[in-house]
Amino acid sequence: MPFDLVIKNGTVATASDVFRADIGISDGRIAQIGGAMDGAARVIDAAGRYVLPGGIDSHVHIAQPSGPGIEMADDFDSATRAAAFGGNTVVMPFCLQERGMSLSAAFRDYRHQADGKSHVDLGFHLIVTDPTPQVLGQELPALIDAGNPSVKVFMTYEAMRMDDAGILATMDVARRHGAKVMVHCENEDVIAFLAQRAAEAGDIAPRAHATTRPVAAEREATHRALTLAEVVDVPIVIVHVSNGAAIDEIARARARGLNITAETCPQYLVLSADDLSRENWEGAKYVCSPPPRDRTEQDNCWRGLQTGLFDLFSSDHCPFRYDDSHGKRNPAGLRSFRHIPNGIPGIETRLPILFSEGVVKGRIDLPRFVALTATNHAKAYGMYPQKGTIAIGSDADIAIWDPELRRTIRHADLHDAADYTPYEGLEVTGWPETVILRGIPVVEAGQLVAPAKGREVSRTG
Amino acid sequence: MPFDLVIKNGTVATASDVFRADIGISDGRIAQIGGAMDGAARVIDAAGRYVLPGGIDSHVHIAQPSGPGIEMADDFDSATRAAAFGGNTVVMPFCLQERGMSLSAAFRDYRHQADGKSHVDLGFHLIVTDPTPQVLGQELPALIDAGNPSVKVFMTYEAMRMDDAGILATMDVARRHGAKVMVHCENEDVIAFLAQRAAEAGDIAPRAHATTRPVAAEREATHRALTLAEVVDVPIVIVHVSNGAAIDEIARARARGLNITAETCPQYLVLSADDLSRENWEGAKYVCSPPPRDRTEQDNCWRGLQTGLFDLFSSDHCPFRYDDSHGKRNPAGLRSFRHIPNGIPGIETRLPILFSEGVVKGRIDLPRFVALTATNHAKAYGMYPQKGTIAIGSDADIAIWDPELRRTIRHADLHDAADYTPYEGLEVTGWPETVILRGIPVVEAGQLVAPAKGREVSRTG
Amino acid sequence: MPFDLVIKNGTVATASDVFRADIGISDGRIAQIGGAMDGAARVIDAAGRYVLPGGIDSHVHIAQPSGPGIEMADDFDSATRAAAFGGNTVVMPFCLQERGMSLSAAFRDYRHQADGKSHVDLGFHLIVTDPTPQVLGQELPALIDAGNPSVKVFMTYEAMRMDDAGILATMDVARRHGAKVMVHCENEDVIAFLAQRAAEAGDIAPRAHATTRPVAAEREATHRALTLAEVVDVPIVIVHVSNGAAIDEIARARARGLNITAETCPQYLVLSADDLSRENWEGAKYVCSPPPRDRTEQDNCWRGLQTGLFDLFSSDHCPFRYDDSHGKRNPAGLRSFRHIPNGIPGIETRLPILFSEGVVKGRIDLPRFVALTATNHAKAYGMYPQKGTIAIGSDADIAIWDPELRRTIRHADLHDAADYTPYEGLEVTGWPETVILRGIPVVEAGQLVAPAKGREVSRTG
Amino acid sequence: MPFDLVIKNGTVATASDVFRADIGISDGRIAQIGGAMDGAARVIDAAGRYVLPGGIDSHVHIAQPSGPGIEMADDFDSATRAAAFGGNTVVMPFCLQERGMSLSAAFRDYRHQADGKSHVDLGFHLIVTDPTPQVLGQELPALIDAGNPSVKVFMTYEAMRMDDAGILATMDVARRHGAKVMVHCENEDVIAFLAQRAAEAGDIAPRAHATTRPVAAEREATHRALTLAEVVDVPIVIVHVSNGAAIDEIARARARGLNITAETCPQYLVLSADDLSRENWEGAKYVCSPPPRDRTEQDNCWRGLQTGLFDLFSSDHCPFRYDDSHGKRNPAGLRSFRHIPNGIPGIETRLPILFSEGVVKGRIDLPRFVALTATNHAKAYGMYPQKGTIAIGSDADIAIWDPELRRTIRHADLHDAADYTPYEGLEVTGWPETVILRGIPVVEAGQLVAPAKGREVSRTG
Repeated sequence: MPFDLVIKNGTVATASDVFRADIGISDGRIAQIGGAMDGAARVIDAAGRYVLPGGIDSHVHIAQPSGPGIEMADDFDSATRAAAFGGNTVVMPFCLQERGMSLSAAFRDYRHQADGKSHVDLGFHLIVTDPTPQVLGQELPALIDAGNPSVKVFMTYEAMRMDDAGILATMDVARRHGAKVMVHCENEDVIAFLAQRAAEAGDIAPRAHATTRPVAAEREATHRALTLAEVVDVPIVIVHVSNGAAIDEIARARARGLNITAETCPQYLVLSADDLSRENWEGAKYVCSPPPRDRTEQDNCWRGLQTGLFDLFSSDHCPFRYDDSHGKRNPAGLRSFRHIPNGIPGIETRLPILFSEGVVKGRIDLPRFVALTATNHAKAYGMYPQKGTIAIGSDADIAIWDPELRRTIRHADLHDAADYTPYEGLEVTGWPETVILRGIPVVEAGQLVAPAKGREVSRTG
Repeated sequence: MPFDLVIKNGTVATASDVFRADIGISDGRIAQIGGAMDGAARVIDAAGRYVLPGGIDSHVHIAQPSGPGIEMADDFDSATRAAAFGGNTVVMPFCLQERGMSLSAAFRDYRHQADGKSHVDLGFHLIVTDPTPQVLGQELPALIDAGNPSVKVFMTYEAMRMDDAGILATMDVARRHGAKVMVHCENEDVIAFLAQRAAEAGDIAPRAHATTRPVAAEREATHRALTLAEVVDVPIVIVHVSNGAAIDEIARARARGLNITAETCPQYLVLSADDLSRENWEGAKYVCSPPPRDRTEQDNCWRGLQTGLFDLFSSDHCPFRYDDSHGKRNPAGLRSFRHIPNGIPGIETRLPILFSEGVVKGRIDLPRFVALTATNHAKAYGMYPQKGTIAIGSDADIAIWDPELRRTIRHADLHDAADYTPYEGLEVTGWPETVILRGIPVVEAGQLVAPAKGREVSRTG
Repeated sequence: MPFDLVIKNGTVATASDVFRADIGISDGRIAQIGGAMDGAARVIDAAGRYVLPGGIDSHVHIAQPSGPGIEMADDFDSATRAAAFGGNTVVMPFCLQERGMSLSAAFRDYRHQADGKSHVDLGFHLIVTDPTPQVLGQELPALIDAGNPSVKVFMTYEAMRMDDAGILATMDVARRHGAKVMVHCENEDVIAFLAQRAAEAGDIAPRAHATTRPVAAEREATHRALTLAEVVDVPIVIVHVSNGAAIDEIARARARGLNITAETCPQYLVLSADDLSRENWEGAKYVCSPPPRDRTEQDNCWRGLQTGLFDLFSSDHCPFRYDDSHGKRNPAGLRSFRHIPNGIPGIETRLPILFSEGVVKGRIDLPRFVALTATNHAKAYGMYPQKGTIAIGSDADIAIWDPELRRTIRHADLHDAADYTPYEGLEVTGWPETVILRGIPVVEAGQLVAPAKGREVSRTG
Repeated sequence: MPFDLVIKNGTVATASDVFRADIGISDGRIAQIGGAMDGAARVIDAAGRYVLPGGIDSHVHIAQPSGPGIEMADDFDSATRAAAFGGNTVVMPFCLQERGMSLSAAFRDYRHQADGKSHVDLGFHLIVTDPTPQVLGQELPALIDAGNPSVKVFMTYEAMRMDDAGILATMDVARRHGAKVMVHCENEDVIAFLAQRAAEAGDIAPRAHATTRPVAAEREATHRALTLAEVVDVPIVIVHVSNGAAIDEIARARARGLNITAETCPQYLVLSADDLSRENWEGAKYVCSPPPRDRTEQDNCWRGLQTGLFDLFSSDHCPFRYDDSHGKRNPAGLRSFRHIPNGIPGIETRLPILFSEGVVKGRIDLPRFVALTATNHAKAYGMYPQKGTIAIGSDADIAIWDPELRRTIRHADLHDAADYTPYEGLEVTGWPETVILRGIPVVEAGQLVAPAKGREVSRTG
């Protein structure tokens, strides 16, 4: 068989296994593992390298409206370029229905923005903020049925939150159409109450973002979201879990029999609320929700990764330019933490951080790394077995890692369109050097080597 | 010292102690315990009897507006008359602010309705349903400061519920003015969702009241209410707890350090959801919220009483006439459980049920009975040491019980103005035969023997 | 009625109530509370004072054999003298069956030692270390039936521990004869393992006593003891609980329905493992088991006192002379922590420490202080209503406290026969100034004013 | 490449993936997955079949001494023959040190018995019952270092149990030499106490085996074993977990950070204590320890399999002939449950039961089936990647399943040497039809087709 591409001599890993084998690729798919592979159009020598499924980042914000005067740093070009450089072959951005507007129209618009711009494959999650009969009765079912079986709701952010009735109604549609429901769990009323109190006390610096979004607000909303899913009987994804109390709620609900997918992110492993106290308003660079906590909660999140409590490790990439967030476009951001846009960039650094802090430091093994960063995402969101693994017939989405490469993270070296990284200066070991999308190298030797040919993945519930 | 009244030869109990002693009463107060008591104006011989503090029922609904066409069965005369016959000397009804209206005006109105009608002493809890600046900024603080340091909020009932923001704001006022916050914990949106689903499925009989208000809805709201109190740092009362999952939430929150008062009621000990299945629409007689559960949850509630998890045992008396609730005044009540008013009578039977099922059957001892039915209520709601105990200087509010009297509960023998009791036919051992309010016998030998001289108790936070 | 003694103008407290009243005493008992009291043989003016039930210290070691060359600092004279000065009117020492010996003979011997020596009343707990047929079949039943319904077993200390079979057999006898079983919960094998490892590592200073008796060893034994009691179905007392993990085990077992009495001690509130690190081998003064933990566990123990998790607050007085423990009589005590006798004195300081740190600092109220230090002990160990409260007919065992007296604890001022106090230098507010046993003042104005007339209390199961 | 064997057209599954691919085998190993495979010595057509890693049964008792007059039904020939017919390619029997004897000698003896008899590959776990210096200081370290890094200890069975000191010492050796410690968690003293009580009450039928080994005895021992492992800091395997309370202990310990492997077995999914009540003493056929529980606990065990709480699903095959167990060789077994040998056969039925009840009924997916029955065993016990998966370079240990074959389990059709199966009459869907060991078919078309060529696997800690 004449292969289009053969990857030779590498150490291959799946969510289960690690083994030495050559990989033969034809027509964009994995065609052969091991054995003789003559007649390849191209051969990549991966000796000393790890050959892993390309990362799937299932929690990414791109080009979302973010309030007056604020725009996200990344469009689909820059975000997916950075994703590819960070070892990813699929990203899953959100399609946000703005209140009072059409979800279908929003979906068309995001798709249009992505069209011809994406360097990796895509799948859109659908954010419902306004559960009108039109949206719940027609648009959402149609979009789910068309291959987008993941819906997200917010319990926080004044502009996006839904009340429990809205969430229940949305969950019920999801259940009937076979979609999962992702929930951002923080109690908005608690946060607004504390933020108002902080404001009245003159407590306006970025640190107050953390103190006004306490663990209790996340724990409460987590318990509530799980209860709503229990009542409706729908699979739920608890996204970006930051602490042990929320982990306990998930564990307790699983013991009651709920079908739960749980996610955490790099910021809950290596950042802390102390970063929000950095001087000269630099704390603003770490404003995300839920906020990073403390060392004890970092340990709780690591334990959750180790014991299988967490299924997904995502970036929650939500990039703003520091200059914008409290600069000329958003002077209010300099006056109070309440006006700093919520979110930090991280799409390119997610995998190296977990590889270095997790695999290299011995906290998790390679199969769990693959599961947490690729396979489980594909399975959770209906892209498996097309995506997320190295198996016969699966798309040849592959990242070839140098497991010993040492780098210091510098925003100057990254490819997103933000103007900083919250991980500036972090030393990591291990980095993806070649990234292959459906058999075509996209990144090689530090260069983008292919045009933007990312496609939407048709998903099943 | 010439006593106004001496109670001789009885067995006296407090929340701590049980002892044989005579009690001397002067000027409406306990003046002497034990020792010689010559020259009494009147002597009651309590040989073979228990001399207990008069019951305090701190959870009673009287003459509350209950929706179009529905009125509560009891006014202050009938409710407090029944209370007195049931061994109580204080009841604590609610003053309900209807949405869009003034809390102060409501308070004046309830007071006016009670004036000259009450056979026992009174203290009003303040229900906030509409947290306007006028109410939170002026009326509520003034009413609390005037001696009403207990505020109630609802998480259910469309007409009364507040959202978390409203609850937080109300709790914050309570905290600043030294009041406790009572919370009815059930998630209204969950209930509405399930009720709608039941209605669509044609599931309309009274039993559906129980199935649409599942334990999960109560557990969720309990966790949330506790979190809100944790955020505000205010003492909270979780009223009418019906099950083990809610008990667990309370226990977990106490272990985190929260100041919680917890209450359960007779319906959660001796009724069950099966009662709502009684034929000929008789299940309507057991419609209350939360609904009675099952045998396992009854056991959990008993255990909560035994271990000290529960501080208060109240009636949640909320009387409707069965004829009205789904009869000529409310024909909708015959068409669907959703239109049956929520609440059951129980003011006169609360104490005999706990005495018989608890003390006589050996589940709890007499001091705990006194604590659960009187002393803890006085302490929780700022009436101690004036009320709730038998101690020098306290009001001579006393119930003399025949601990061996056997009765079968029949509505025909009770004194409220409802037309049934959900406990019809229950056999009990022990009944209060003489009830004394501030030294004046009110009930004796099955007769009301005094005019309605109940007063409001001025309370402290 | 001519009273033997009247206490006038004081503020009286019980486990339930606080009130102003005079107390009239006749024939050693409380005869009248409140009212006129003419013709008293003696009157004590307690204006500005608290009149409390005399303390009951139900966990006291006196004159117990403690290993070769070691003897306890106190005999019955000195221990009960110190108890009286510390506001106590009853102490409950242990009668230790030494392995291979008779329990009955031991009981006779302790009784003989106490005879005519005790300044307060007494009740003996029976320690079983060797569950022979003679002991379990005859001696223990006879001693329980004779009025000693409390048996203690050890899960630690090589010379005293029993295995689970022995504990089960002992519990079974206790169940059949209506006794409670007290358990010292630490896993001896774990401790021996860690102590051996510490010794091999040259870790021999007193601090190693704490590190080789970790929380896990206590948590494990607590869970196990509770399970054994669950299997046998016998009431259990978990003594000297030191930490939150053990508290959790107790709470979980109570939720399963077990009948548990739980105890903590002053050392777990105000001492910590850091005290065992004091230089010049002074850490030896803080060697007791379980060891004091850290600030977090102190807080957990306080919370247990506040929420009612703990029923009893005892001293675990177990006095050794520092000079002896590692001095001329026990040179091994200077060579390794393993040879320092386990136990610290505390009989005289227990009540002032809880009063000052608890009541004065607002952590607990006066009725809970009374419950924790007197009433609950009397109820738990079958001495109620004779002991533990101020009620008509009860023994007139009373401590009159000056609630504002400030003292610095100095061993020079105490009355036990040890040569130090672990609380040296602790400032407290509140001290008992007059202590009355069965109507007879024992301590007044800093002096012992009565001969040793303490009696054994006959107890019921 | 000339393959020795090619499996064509099957659906392959690993612990992560499911995909259609041909498998090429050379020199006993997986050489190629997918792609062209010309020139095979033999081709098996697996169209419509599942191609799974051969099962690893890591909990099997073969030819163990079992008390006077009792012998196990199976020797290595019959046990491993049945294993092969049940889809297994590796079994892990125990090497039992009898008290007072040498572990090394026992190991040699078991090996000798197995020599030339085994139809599948083998790995021995080492049971320590007598922790002498010789055993712990020399034999055990040598055997671990020689490739047997798994040690088992018993907390029950009078002849095999060790006390906590023995377990700690054994764990410490395991820790230092890199072995895992497997623990049978039931409290022997509790069981002996209850069994004695049952005997005294004349409660002697097989059902008493279940009532005298209650959940509490297992929960307690589980908590204790976990604590011992926590103290020593050694990886622990909790074997044959039967209920939710023990599951909770494992979950709590994992949240504290312990390294735990957890196992359950078929008897806890499909049998119950009611089976021990079968008439005519047939209950004896279900006597194993821990005993099967009830429906609620079956559900708890299923949930543990679904949520990843359990890592391993094993048989705990421990075969006795019913005729022997209470027949002529063991007449005592007819007189009392205490003399019925503990254990049931199950080596051949383990995989079909989980496949049918789990995969076919939709409770678990195929990758989890593979993980629970093969891959996780290999990883837990140091045989990975040689064993337990289908990956390049791994041993070609493969079971080809007909996923639609319906069978009724009948002992007449099974291959062990017992005289019954506890699963008689259970209908299952799915059965392994071809079993391949290192590339050589062992079972085909219902026949054993190869001589006994099983080898010991050299394992790493």
